[in-house]
Amino acid sequence: MEFLRSKIKEEGRVINATTLKVDSFLNHQLDPQLMLEMGKEFKKRFEGKGINKILTIEASGIAIGIMAGLAFDVPVVFAKKKKPSTMSDMYCTTVHSFTKKIDYDICLSKEFLKPGDRVLVVDDFLAMGNAIIGLEKIVAEAGAELCGVGIAIEKGFQEGGRIIRDRGIHLESLAILDTMEKDEVKFL
Amino acid sequence: MEFLRSKIKEEGRVINATTLKVDSFLNHQLDPQLMLEMGKEFKKRFEGKGINKILTIEASGIAIGIMAGLAFDVPVVFAKKKKPSTMSDMYCTTVHSFTKKIDYDICLSKEFLKPGDRVLVVDDFLAMGNAIIGLEKIVAEAGAELCGVGIAIEKGFQEGGRIIRDRGIHLESLAILDTMEKDEVKFL
Repeated sequence: MEFLRSKIKEEGRVINATTLKVDSFLNHQLDPQLMLEMGKEFKKRFEGKGINKILTIEASGIAIGIMAGLAFDVPVVFAKKKKPSTMSDMYCTTVHSFTKKIDYDICLSKEFLKPGDRVLVVDDFLAMGNAIIGLEKIVAEAGAELCGVGIAIEKGFQEGGRIIRDRGIHLESLAILDTMEKDEVKFL
Repeated sequence: MEFLRSKIKEEGRVINATTLKVDSFLNHQLDPQLMLEMGKEFKKRFEGKGINKILTIEASGIAIGIMAGLAFDVPVVFAKKKKPSTMSDMYCTTVHSFTKKIDYDICLSKEFLKPGDRVLVVDDFLAMGNAIIGLEKIVAEAGAELCGVGIAIEKGFQEGGRIIRDRGIHLESLAILDTMEKDEVKFL
């Protein structure tokens, strides 16, 4: 997706060999037009899969998720990172973040994911793939079907992409980083 | 906004006299079409104010924020509820949540709010108004101008609305709850 790659080139900041900061359009400040285009692009790439629900994780996944939901005209549900006090009947699983070096729980109300649901998971980054595998578990537990995973930026130099594809999951990443050396991002 | 009021009537669940659960379309599962319409409605209500930035708080404000940003065609920035490790130069303030009975910090990178910015703050709920007052502080600290506050659901029986309006802030709430008795929501 040329628009996203240009944004990364122009505004992304390479922090080190594995960390790219895209705070100005994806993680803290958000570019609504870019998000809209990403939603449409996911619609194109997962056309005909009968998707009836978008699943993502708070907080950075929400903007991408809502635009995917708009493009597909289906509801969006986001997993919460801690157990809300008003939520009782939930799917929960623990995710390890290699980037942040922490474990966290993701929780989803059983009300919003049901057997027969055909789910597209979307997220901002794919690094080691643990968040996606956590969501895959929740989808399986709900008896729903994971029809695909749509990612804004895949870190091609980390394991996540290979792991997800090896599980037979249809993965589409809108930009795949190859290397980040000397402050310069190269794409696959 | 009739569409939102109908949704609240149909899907909102009254937990007690002050708590309304709208998990099925606003807080956990999201209705993209409703969010899009809310964005357009804010555009209509704050037309001609020269707004060039939407400000909100993670996580429930993000979906509303991005749709407001789309309607205004301006960037959206969301305050984070904890200090991110990769963010150094920030505005931070502490907010007390009466609903959740906790204090939490909200932080915003100084990069994304500047003197001269004309800001519309949006959020899902307005109860006691503390989150909004926290954001107002950050806007003032940045030397930016708070041009208005757009809320999806105002709890008309709590103080927030009066407090915000008494500060001379242009507040627009798309649905104002009057009472929630015997499982029935009434609007102002």
